[in-house]
Amino acid sequence: MAMSSTARKRVVVIGGGFAGINAAVNLAKFPVDITLVDRKNHHTFQPLLYQVALAVLSPAEIAQPIRSILRDHQNIEVLMDEAVGFDLEEKRVELKTGAQLEYDYLIIATGSTHSYFGHDEWSKLAPGLKTVEDATEIRRRVLLAFEFAERQMQEAGTHPPLRFVIIGGGPTGVELAGAISDIARLYMARDFRHIDPASAQVLILEGSPNILAAYPPELQKKALDQLSALGVKIRTNAHVTDVQPGYVMIGDERLDATVTLWAAGVQASPLGKLLGVPLDRRGCVIVDQFLNPPEHPEIFICGDLAHVEEDGKQVPGVAQPAMQMGTYAAKRIGRLVSAELGSDGTGLNEPFHYFDKGDMATIGRKAAVANIKWPFHGRWSGFPAWIVWLVIHIYFIIGFRNRLAIFRQWAWTYLTFQDGARLITGSQELPGWDSQYGKQPSEAVVPAESVTTRT
Amino acid sequence: MAMSSTARKRVVVIGGGFAGINAAVNLAKFPVDITLVDRKNHHTFQPLLYQVALAVLSPAEIAQPIRSILRDHQNIEVLMDEAVGFDLEEKRVELKTGAQLEYDYLIIATGSTHSYFGHDEWSKLAPGLKTVEDATEIRRRVLLAFEFAERQMQEAGTHPPLRFVIIGGGPTGVELAGAISDIARLYMARDFRHIDPASAQVLILEGSPNILAAYPPELQKKALDQLSALGVKIRTNAHVTDVQPGYVMIGDERLDATVTLWAAGVQASPLGKLLGVPLDRRGCVIVDQFLNPPEHPEIFICGDLAHVEEDGKQVPGVAQPAMQMGTYAAKRIGRLVSAELGSDGTGLNEPFHYFDKGDMATIGRKAAVANIKWPFHGRWSGFPAWIVWLVIHIYFIIGFRNRLAIFRQWAWTYLTFQDGARLITGSQELPGWDSQYGKQPSEAVVPAESVTTRT
Repeated sequence: MAMSSTARKRVVVIGGGFAGINAAVNLAKFPVDITLVDRKNHHTFQPLLYQVALAVLSPAEIAQPIRSILRDHQNIEVLMDEAVGFDLEEKRVELKTGAQLEYDYLIIATGSTHSYFGHDEWSKLAPGLKTVEDATEIRRRVLLAFEFAERQMQEAGTHPPLRFVIIGGGPTGVELAGAISDIARLYMARDFRHIDPASAQVLILEGSPNILAAYPPELQKKALDQLSALGVKIRTNAHVTDVQPGYVMIGDERLDATVTLWAAGVQASPLGKLLGVPLDRRGCVIVDQFLNPPEHPEIFICGDLAHVEEDGKQVPGVAQPAMQMGTYAAKRIGRLVSAELGSDGTGLNEPFHYFDKGDMATIGRKAAVANIKWPFHGRWSGFPAWIVWLVIHIYFIIGFRNRLAIFRQWAWTYLTFQDGARLITGSQELPGWDSQYGKQPSEAVVPAESVTTRT
Repeated sequence: MAMSSTARKRVVVIGGGFAGINAAVNLAKFPVDITLVDRKNHHTFQPLLYQVALAVLSPAEIAQPIRSILRDHQNIEVLMDEAVGFDLEEKRVELKTGAQLEYDYLIIATGSTHSYFGHDEWSKLAPGLKTVEDATEIRRRVLLAFEFAERQMQEAGTHPPLRFVIIGGGPTGVELAGAISDIARLYMARDFRHIDPASAQVLILEGSPNILAAYPPELQKKALDQLSALGVKIRTNAHVTDVQPGYVMIGDERLDATVTLWAAGVQASPLGKLLGVPLDRRGCVIVDQFLNPPEHPEIFICGDLAHVEEDGKQVPGVAQPAMQMGTYAAKRIGRLVSAELGSDGTGLNEPFHYFDKGDMATIGRKAAVANIKWPFHGRWSGFPAWIVWLVIHIYFIIGFRNRLAIFRQWAWTYLTFQDGARLITGSQELPGWDSQYGKQPSEAVVPAESVTTRT
């Protein structure tokens, strides 16, 4: 340690999400050497991921290579690798390749993943939405469902009802439902000749008594109204007991589902378990007011992986607190390093405080609910809330160099709904379609009339 | 048939590439009902596919849903399905789902696919470039190679040479080589800290004595010079005898290859075989001057699947002739229908004539070779040829509604090389990397110095 106190301090950041990127950027101005490790090469702007899933945006519009984001900071290194273990005594991170990274300070911000409540076999049948790959898989399934229905109409004059079942009524479930409803009405009406738009159903299954549980009842009601206006059906207190190709079970009740999506549960990244420190029941690391786990003032847990309480309530696992935690950890490390270097240590022991600016969720293309707490107080819904959502997401969150270019492209595509990214790539199969609906109802030759009839 | 002569004629178009789309659009103005069948939901602008492979453009910028392209033509239907058989007597197409489509006229334009010369097992190790999926797979491999090399440098201070081997020196091989060389120099220099740009090699292996065999010797020479200036190595008369993870064999010689790409051979779509008509050795359907196979004046073969000769030379399998064939078939069907309907049949027996406007291939970001034949004669190379390439590709080929928007986005990304679509999605594995280079050269802890040293 005698040697290392004269050398520059090494900070290892695990995870390139909102917390990790903010930590790295804010650390860069201190005299430290930073290595950011992520198993992906890109940072994903998760709040807009559902728009990739619903074919409005392209992956590259909401994801950026981490190297590009951090390119200008000479004291940041980016390593595409995966942390698989820790030696907290020797202050080392073990990487998947077998290499080890030594650190003086460690920031762990590996986020969360889907929880299928012990039914991991459901993940293939009901994909969730965390990564770019998830989003393109959901896009593939939703678009294929329309193609298959159109094919059935052309070939047989009828098709089984299209039903999109979304398990979970939190913000992601609500945003997916609104976006699918939009795409169904606009896309089907313009690009398909035969499918009956009225036949497409979007259904949210929520286990608890209310959707958007974190929102005030007044906004829950508004969200219900706005979803109803889009034709989205909602069943609360509906506990899914099984997910199968083509249907889901709620107890004894079978609900046909052309496409099933998962927006129900998340669990912390498994990295928390490897630390050997106390976790909550979802696997989040319980940290103190400095975001440190017990007895490790050199380790900071940020973002969804951290269990932090503010006024007795757990800080939610969304972008804003993740960014704030990353920034806080960076500043605190900066202060610790500066204090060691002889500064006066002002503000050294300032605890983390979550500054809650509010929550918002979009409902389709022109409505949203927003529970704003800063810079003003307000509970908004409908179109004004959607405008607030748009401004905040573009101007306050996408803090990268191409904000304006992305905004221009995005606003144009989104507002006009013209030629979004409606590509079906990968397999042409939809789980359950064959078994549920059959490949083709009859061997008979399709009469010319049914092939060319218009609706 | 008595009934069908009073009904509108039905035209089935198989394939949504350049030939199929042009056929459908040009048929739309005649009193016929058109069904276009493609197993993908999108048309791919293949001349720019290599730019998706090399992370300049996003898939959605060069591919568009076929439904969107044809949306405004009320007498065109789009069916996402696959033709698997024909009944030429009864004039029916069998689809994969089991349905059948009746036709009065049939246009088959299913193009070509890679030929691995009987070694289909090479396809996993050396992907070719025909589809959006191929392009994202190549992108993944090329970008991963840089990430892996950087990781080795950080962890061990050295990495095995990065060598990108491109099998085949036609236009696709040359374009891939130029683009990889560009990305290596620009991307590595800006976004990576440790890899030595000089260590990246791009190598073209061409079996014949010359690259760009279809070009005049003068332009072949220019292309060689321009490739050399980019550091691309070329070996002609090099017959690859084996492709393995991490290397290729040329006879007894083993050549290490971090990433191997296939640009060597194409073969016709297997659909040609199902017709029971004469084929050439690559599986192309031999057609007459009306693009009809023998004895089937109601069937038109267009694009890469057609073997058409012009002045004793086979018309090449590229975009221009495919578009011209599609347009020709549409016009001829229109004339046949009009003649049947009582028109005077003017020009009815005009044969297909390929109007050769020339060939061009880009070499990196600022050079190209162009053998222009129309609207002026000229053999251009270097930057002027590149400008010609750019103008022609944007203004003359992308004939869709978003041409301008795509152009703006594309030109900006391409000219600045800023934040293209450098996402690595899918698996994080590179075939042969582990066996070839090892996961990690040593178990030793990386000393802090080697982690933070800059080059």
